[in-house]
Amino acid sequence: MSHSSSQITSLNTIRIVLCTTTHPGNIGAAARAMKTMGVSDLALVTPRFFPDEEANTRATSAVDILERAQVFSTLEDALKGCHFVVGLTSRRRDLSHDMVSLRESTLRAAREITSQSSAHHDRSIPLRAAFVFGTEMSGLSNSELDLCHLLANIPTDPDFGSLNLGSAVQVTCYELRQAFLGDIPIQPYPQPLALHQDVEALFTHLERALSITQFLNPKNPKKLMERLRRMLTRTRLEQEEVSMLRGLLKSFERTLAPSSKRADNGE
Amino acid sequence: MSHSSSQITSLNTIRIVLCTTTHPGNIGAAARAMKTMGVSDLALVTPRFFPDEEANTRATSAVDILERAQVFSTLEDALKGCHFVVGLTSRRRDLSHDMVSLRESTLRAAREITSQSSAHHDRSIPLRAAFVFGTEMSGLSNSELDLCHLLANIPTDPDFGSLNLGSAVQVTCYELRQAFLGDIPIQPYPQPLALHQDVEALFTHLERALSITQFLNPKNPKKLMERLRRMLTRTRLEQEEVSMLRGLLKSFERTLAPSSKRADNGE
Repeated sequence: MSHSSSQITSLNTIRIVLCTTTHPGNIGAAARAMKTMGVSDLALVTPRFFPDEEANTRATSAVDILERAQVFSTLEDALKGCHFVVGLTSRRRDLSHDMVSLRESTLRAAREITSQSSAHHDRSIPLRAAFVFGTEMSGLSNSELDLCHLLANIPTDPDFGSLNLGSAVQVTCYELRQAFLGDIPIQPYPQPLALHQDVEALFTHLERALSITQFLNPKNPKKLMERLRRMLTRTRLEQEEVSMLRGLLKSFERTLAPSSKRADNGE
Repeated sequence: MSHSSSQITSLNTIRIVLCTTTHPGNIGAAARAMKTMGVSDLALVTPRFFPDEEANTRATSAVDILERAQVFSTLEDALKGCHFVVGLTSRRRDLSHDMVSLRESTLRAAREITSQSSAHHDRSIPLRAAFVFGTEMSGLSNSELDLCHLLANIPTDPDFGSLNLGSAVQVTCYELRQAFLGDIPIQPYPQPLALHQDVEALFTHLERALSITQFLNPKNPKKLMERLRRMLTRTRLEQEEVSMLRGLLKSFERTLAPSSKRADNGE
């Protein structure tokens, strides 16, 4: 495969995800912004109005992107099959999420996709990186942020600061085009990274195992699971690491098993 | 003058010039785009409608930029006092102009302004760099291009390619902010990171716990421990995360403890 065609393919790996968009015009503006930069995969999570005439009007000649847009009822569904998930946020947070500039996040995405494209990867699984935008007024919720591997901030004037959704998607897709088609060399990751759903299955397994030992308070398992989740999503786990961690959990469950058959449920 | 205040000053040296804008809504969108990035000097050359209610509506809270915008009857007038002039164009030209990417043009502008700010410069003349946008349908005319020192192109998908005026100004002001103010300041890690010795103690604890479950082959525990170590050192664990993981291991050991007192050794 030539350098150029693999580069062009790589922008096809980008999914733009808009969560709970209130104004259909913004969906159209986002579609147009995507199309100018050669990004075409649009996912909508519970849009308030869609399809909608105003969206079509604002999209102008990018209506084909709206026609091919997929609508999902949860963000988790929209992220199935995504290897790398970036959440755009303007809020400062005291969470332990990594927060980087938009530019850095797009370079990281290019690196992820390039790594996955290496010979190690099973080519039957299409590669995908998602950039997730929250609802217009309040951005991404905490539970939406928890599904992201990385948070990114578009630098703006702190005295004004609010990019509208169409502008945020425009600047993001511009940077993605620069990162994927620009001339900064991309250093691949050494091993294939885990898929979103495999990491989610690991969290489910972890929660079950920790309930057995009563490390998690079964009435309020949430806080500790959130901290474990942040720690492990930050890491960008490899496929083999997820397998290893699940093997590790199974070994605990097996050792505990004689007194607790629960451990084998759902496996 | 501190580094920071001189940086903030430098975005004030940018003038955005819109030539013969047909749709007043685009002027409002441009003003809003400027304001999000901290650029405030707007010059309008023979706008078809201005002032205009639609411009105000699209500007939302950037109406102050419209109120302070200057209107000129020629581009030459609008450029008076400008030291460096960049013309934005999507057309390929066989003119003898330099044509560079938007990013390079904003870096060049930052360099020009910084150079002019040096001690050689007469400080009574305010420094200024102009970024000039043509009319919506046909862009800058040849005579307008002739007034520019440099032509810049915003990279877009060649199969689509037309950024609307508001989007072009948005992306340009975003790049100007990057070029003049650099990336967002480095954000410290939100939580204290673990000390080396605490992470090492975690690995010792992990190895002991995993020997009990026979997940590690006690005769050759090394390979799996190396992989776990690689995964966890990559993460940059926080102090509290190390405590949490040790608590988690203890909970497994406690659950296994009745049959194995080894678990409490060395604690």
